[in-house]
Amino acid sequence: MTRKINVGIKDIGRAVGVSMMTVSRALRGVEGVSPAMRAEILRMAEVMDYRPNRTARSLASARSSLIGISIPTLFSDVFPEILDGMRATLSHAGFDTVIDTTDYDRSREAAWVERMLDWNAAGLVLSGIDHAPEMRDHLRALQIPTLEIWDVCDDPIDICVGVDHHAAGEMLGRHLIACGYRRPAFVSVPEGRDRRADKRLAGLRASFEAAGVAEMMVERVDRRAAFVAGAVGTEALLNRPGPRPDVIAYLNDHMAFGGLSVCERLELPVPQAVGIAGFNGLELNTVLPRPITTVRTPLNAMGVTGARNLVARMNGAVVVRSIIMPTRLQEGDTTWAVGASAA
Amino acid sequence: MTRKINVGIKDIGRAVGVSMMTVSRALRGVEGVSPAMRAEILRMAEVMDYRPNRTARSLASARSSLIGISIPTLFSDVFPEILDGMRATLSHAGFDTVIDTTDYDRSREAAWVERMLDWNAAGLVLSGIDHAPEMRDHLRALQIPTLEIWDVCDDPIDICVGVDHHAAGEMLGRHLIACGYRRPAFVSVPEGRDRRADKRLAGLRASFEAAGVAEMMVERVDRRAAFVAGAVGTEALLNRPGPRPDVIAYLNDHMAFGGLSVCERLELPVPQAVGIAGFNGLELNTVLPRPITTVRTPLNAMGVTGARNLVARMNGAVVVRSIIMPTRLQEGDTTWAVGASAA
Repeated sequence: MTRKINVGIKDIGRAVGVSMMTVSRALRGVEGVSPAMRAEILRMAEVMDYRPNRTARSLASARSSLIGISIPTLFSDVFPEILDGMRATLSHAGFDTVIDTTDYDRSREAAWVERMLDWNAAGLVLSGIDHAPEMRDHLRALQIPTLEIWDVCDDPIDICVGVDHHAAGEMLGRHLIACGYRRPAFVSVPEGRDRRADKRLAGLRASFEAAGVAEMMVERVDRRAAFVAGAVGTEALLNRPGPRPDVIAYLNDHMAFGGLSVCERLELPVPQAVGIAGFNGLELNTVLPRPITTVRTPLNAMGVTGARNLVARMNGAVVVRSIIMPTRLQEGDTTWAVGASAA
Repeated sequence: MTRKINVGIKDIGRAVGVSMMTVSRALRGVEGVSPAMRAEILRMAEVMDYRPNRTARSLASARSSLIGISIPTLFSDVFPEILDGMRATLSHAGFDTVIDTTDYDRSREAAWVERMLDWNAAGLVLSGIDHAPEMRDHLRALQIPTLEIWDVCDDPIDICVGVDHHAAGEMLGRHLIACGYRRPAFVSVPEGRDRRADKRLAGLRASFEAAGVAEMMVERVDRRAAFVAGAVGTEALLNRPGPRPDVIAYLNDHMAFGGLSVCERLELPVPQAVGIAGFNGLELNTVLPRPITTVRTPLNAMGVTGARNLVARMNGAVVVRSIIMPTRLQEGDTTWAVGASAA
C-alpha cells in the first residue's frame, strides 16, 4: 500500500519530537516556530522524503471545490437529516462533498482532517465541538473555513451552528418536574461517546436538582441500533432493585420508542406507571400509535444555516461565529399533562 | 467556484459529439478510437484547456490508497450495516474510503465515479448493478477494480457480491402461500427507485402467480423514514375499496414495523386479520414486542466478502466475478404457521 510509504506531518513531528501543529507551521513558514526548529523540521522532512504534494496540494493556489464532512456514525437518525439540508445547499453553491465516519473516535477524526488538508479541501464540517485539542489548534493556525455543526460554544474553531444541549436538557427537566415526576431516569450510550447526550443529561439533572431531586438513575447501553438500545436499557432499569423510576428520558426518540415497546410488552401503562420522553422530534413521531413527549430540534434548518455560513466564510465574508438554533418542547401522550401527579 | 472552470471529459465529449468513454479512450491512448477522432478529441481538449492532473492524476503512476464508495442514501438501515463490515476490512488492508450518496440518481452516481477517477482512486464500490450504461462501459474500458455490492448478475462491471433479490422474493412468496395466504399486497417506494425492491416484488409475484393468484395489490410511498413509509402505505392499502389483503409484505423490516403499528392502532389483529412480512432480518427484530416474519440477508458478511474480493482484485488476483450470498426465511409471529389457514 502506498499509505505505508507516505510520510505525513505526524511522522515528522514524532521524529523531531514536536506537535503536528508545529510541523505544519514550520512547513508553511507561518510564525510561531523558531528558525532553528524550523530548520530541523525541514531537514527531517527531507530525510524522511515528505511529499506535501502527494495529492492535490500541487494545486494549492487553485481554488478547490471540495468539502470534507466528518460524522460520528451512519447508524444515526440525526446526521442524515442535518446533512440533507447541508449538502443540498453546498451542492447548489458548486461544492462537492465527501463523508467519513469516526465512530466517535477523536484520533480518527484528526486523521480524516489531515487527509482533507492534503487534498486541499476548501472547507471542513465537523460534528460537535469536542475534538482533539491539537487538531483544533492546527485548524485555527491554518485558518481553514471550518463549520462545527449540531453543538455550540462561544469559541468555535471557526464557526458553529447548533443547539444548546444543556439548555435543551434543562427545558425537558423543568417540563417533567411540572408534570409531577420525581424519580427520573435516563437511558443513553456509554459516557463520553456522545458528548451532546451527556450535556443533555447534565441539563436534565440540573433541573431536577434545582427542584430538590438529587438522584437520577442512568442506564448506559452499548448497542448500535437505537430502538434496540432503548429496549435493552429500559429492561435493565426496570430490573434494578429499589423503587421504579416514574419517568424515563432517552437519548433520542428511537430509543424512547424502544423503551415504550418494552413497557407495552410488560403491560406497564404509560404514562400511568412510567412516563417516557425522547429527543429530536423526528418524523417517526408523527406516525407512532401514540406520540412521544420530546424536544424538537431543527435538524434540516440547522444544516442549511450551517452550510450557508460556511459558503459565506469560504467567500471571505465575516459571519456570526456561533449560532444557536431554537429547540422546543413537544408534549406527547407518554407523559402526564402539566400539573397532573405522577405518583 | 473552480468547478465551473474545470473542464471534464464529459464537456469534451459534448463538444466533439462523442461519448465520455470515447474521450477517455482517446486521452489515454487506448484502442477503439480512430486516429482522426483521437486527433480531434486531443485538439478539443487543448482548446478547452482540459487538465487531467487537476487533483491526483499527477500521481497516476503511484499507487493510490483511496476507495470511493457510492450509496443511494444515508436514510437506510441496510447500507450502514454493509459498510460496517466493508470499511473495517478495507481500512485494515490500508485503504482510505470516501462516501457519497446518489439519492437513487444514476447521473449523480456517474458524476461521482468521474470524480473518483480524477482522484486516481484505487477502486470503486457501487451499490447494486443497475447503472447508467455509459458509465458501465467506461469503467469496463478503464479496467479499474470495481465492486458492485448488494445485488448480483452474471456479467458485472468487474466483480459483484450480493443476494439474489428475485429468488429471495420468490422464497418469501412460497412461504406465504404455504401459510395459506391468497390476497397478497406489497408496500414499497416509487417504482424504479430501489431496483432491488422491485426485483423482490417480481419474485414474490412470480410465486403467487405460480400458485394461481394473479392479483397483487401494490402501494408505493414516497417518504424517507422507513417506519413512516410503512405506516402510510398500510393505511392507504387498508382504505382501498374491495377486499382487504390477507397478508402485506414490505420493502424492509422497518416498514413492516410501521405497518404493524398501524394494525395495532386500528385493532386489526395480526396475523388473524392480516399477516405482516418484512425483509432483511435487522437487529430491530430481536427486541420487537413480537418478531416479524422476514428474510434474513447477511449484510455485514456481504460487506466483508465484497471488501476482501476488491482488495484481492486490486492486488491483481483473479477472483470469482459474481458471488451470491445466502438468504433464509425467518418465521416470526406476524404470519400464520405453515399449513394454517389465513382465511
